[in-house]
Amino acid sequence: MDTYDAIIKKRDRRHFLARPIPEETLRRILQAGRMAGSSKNSQPNRFVVVRDRELLERMAAMVPVGKWLSTAAAAVVFVQEGRAHGFDAGRAAQNMMLTAFNEGIGSCPAHLPEAALAQMLGIPEGLFLDRVIGFGYVDPERDRPPSAVARQRLPLEDIVHYDRW
Amino acid sequence: MDTYDAIIKKRDRRHFLARPIPEETLRRILQAGRMAGSSKNSQPNRFVVVRDRELLERMAAMVPVGKWLSTAAAAVVFVQEGRAHGFDAGRAAQNMMLTAFNEGIGSCPAHLPEAALAQMLGIPEGLFLDRVIGFGYVDPERDRPPSAVARQRLPLEDIVHYDRW
Repeated sequence: MDTYDAIIKKRDRRHFLARPIPEETLRRILQAGRMAGSSKNSQPNRFVVVRDRELLERMAAMVPVGKWLSTAAAAVVFVQEGRAHGFDAGRAAQNMMLTAFNEGIGSCPAHLPEAALAQMLGIPEGLFLDRVIGFGYVDPERDRPPSAVARQRLPLEDIVHYDRW
Repeated sequence: MDTYDAIIKKRDRRHFLARPIPEETLRRILQAGRMAGSSKNSQPNRFVVVRDRELLERMAAMVPVGKWLSTAAAAVVFVQEGRAHGFDAGRAAQNMMLTAFNEGIGSCPAHLPEAALAQMLGIPEGLFLDRVIGFGYVDPERDRPPSAVARQRLPLEDIVHYDRW
């Protein structure tokens, strides 16, 4: 898919089929995260790929709105050495979600309680968890967003200024 | 260009030709930023597009490594309402830089001193500046990275864990 098409059409998805992601496809998604640029090439992102169904179900139960995560084919947990790297996490996450979308795989970021998740996954102390992103093949039967809400965005004119605010 | 190709091939660029970015192309870059998803669709990003040459030169003079910014065709300053939205800024920034790359336009993020930049651009109090991204057509004559450094990344095996750390 053309890059701009993918960027404009992609939206966050949470309704997945019970279909695993092939190893080769998962590797491309991870490569996309790895190749994202970072401030001074500091490469702050580490990824924990969770596919174990029991772990996914425990993650889904951590927050009231997390149920969809139990049906993800894989969840990627972003781990970083400090808290100042949100921008670089976002760059890598977008690369990964666009790569997935390019192959028919939906995705959505989520926030889970950090301490509980770190303990469950054995994340060493001194590292920080940012987002979790769930990935899965989109279930077309259950993925019909309310048209009034889907991808609603502020008009470009409201968010862009030229030369001065 | 195919989405995955663009994601894997893109790297940050800082050597630009003195060639303006057409309005339509700039609009696509901004649309790509606008359409990026954000936490709870909060849409925290605002963009100040700087094309005025004098302003670009003043921005370039703000940091010792900023000279390249004076040759950018445009710089986009990311403005947000709070400091907790780095991840969403990164998502939008990556969309914008990939869209640019898809059209032969290079880009690179930069950090500039916030207070000085906010004053120069008339950013209202209570808003925060995150990154600045410079965009421009890449100058092939001056854009030959040292091959040993270009896009050096840690091996995938060193940054990915499966199911547990």
